[in-house]
Amino acid sequence: MNPTAAILLIGDEILSGRTKDSNGNHLAKCLAELGIALHEIRVVPDDHAVIVSALNALRKAHIHVFTSGGIGPTHDDITADAVAAAFGVGISVRDDARAILATNYDNPADLNEMRLRMARIPDGARLIDNPISKAPGFSLGNVHVMAGVPVIFEAMVAGLLPSLTGGAPMRSISVRVDNPEGAVAAELAEIAARFPTLSIGSYPFVTDSGFGTNIVARGFDAELLAAVEVEIHKL
Amino acid sequence: MNPTAAILLIGDEILSGRTKDSNGNHLAKCLAELGIALHEIRVVPDDHAVIVSALNALRKAHIHVFTSGGIGPTHDDITADAVAAAFGVGISVRDDARAILATNYDNPADLNEMRLRMARIPDGARLIDNPISKAPGFSLGNVHVMAGVPVIFEAMVAGLLPSLTGGAPMRSISVRVDNPEGAVAAELAEIAARFPTLSIGSYPFVTDSGFGTNIVARGFDAELLAAVEVEIHKL
Repeated sequence: MNPTAAILLIGDEILSGRTKDSNGNHLAKCLAELGIALHEIRVVPDDHAVIVSALNALRKAHIHVFTSGGIGPTHDDITADAVAAAFGVGISVRDDARAILATNYDNPADLNEMRLRMARIPDGARLIDNPISKAPGFSLGNVHVMAGVPVIFEAMVAGLLPSLTGGAPMRSISVRVDNPEGAVAAELAEIAARFPTLSIGSYPFVTDSGFGTNIVARGFDAELLAAVEVEIHKL
Repeated sequence: MNPTAAILLIGDEILSGRTKDSNGNHLAKCLAELGIALHEIRVVPDDHAVIVSALNALRKAHIHVFTSGGIGPTHDDITADAVAAAFGVGISVRDDARAILATNYDNPADLNEMRLRMARIPDGARLIDNPISKAPGFSLGNVHVMAGVPVIFEAMVAGLLPSLTGGAPMRSISVRVDNPEGAVAAELAEIAARFPTLSIGSYPFVTDSGFGTNIVARGFDAELLAAVEVEIHKL
């Protein structure tokens, strides 16, 4: 049984449409490769009560919860406090986090009060390395808290994931069918019924020359996937 | 008070990372323009029980719920059934939906059993026009059900939104500051405290020449936004 996960993306900028999120898709691909089954992505605003409520729902339902956003130095960065509140633990500036942060500033005075907010870590958390801008993420229990800036998020993910236990990597095969999905749906349903351990999806597309369908099968057994690919090519 | 909304994106292909969703961002921008406050985006798999549970949570918490995906002709298209189950109503092939669908096929035999699935509409729903491939979406209560293919989703949104009552459109101003956010955070917090009805966010970015910050203020009052823009330019 592969471990399950959820991603919680935190930020008004995604909900207003200003920012098109890329962190969810990036991490989704990494988790599939690692064999961790992603069951939900949720986007919530910079609102303490909403973040706490979402964290508590997701961390109880999944083996891993990954968050993105809200751990910078400004007034709207409230994720660390929300995580501490969700777990009912304290939060304060931690010496190791402060020391890491300090390596980013030649002039000690630049590590001002607002920047020191980035060294506030909930009690009992383990730091996640940030090779880009130093300010660390952290893991508390099964919740992994990372930055929202994509280049930093991706660097944190690259450092974190090898420490997590996954399962067999999810593999997939994809076949392009130059027919609208309604023309192949009945036969495809029969194929899906014969391969119940695979997830078989049908993704229609539109081009200038008409409608087509990408058939994608996903699963953990490479032999079964090879067998189903042969069947799908007959459609 | 502006109406609130949630978006429910349905599909294994988003959670596996294969598909990078664009419908959420497109609708988020449209809703901001219309003055409907988007409070959540949730991505769930093609799983009946999970979809029903998410629909019931979201439709009770928000004025509008918009769904994307899972209304095609194939075995993995289960959204319409999940919506009927969430509302506790029946679902069957409806004559008006069948007639619309039939206009898409020159040969009546092409409207096969699987394609007829796209004319199955929950009892009491109102159809949403699909000018691209005919198969309609539908609204039931405060839940608006649309296709996942972006070109079709966007066409359905364009037809649906004018029928919904919004509020004052959300406006925003954006100022680029060539300083890392830690350098402006304290002053920015003071500005945010002086404009409590505006949502003021700070979005750091990384370029070859170093760290910078986009400051974005959002709200419904154009005069307040103009005033805060002057203050932010002083940072």
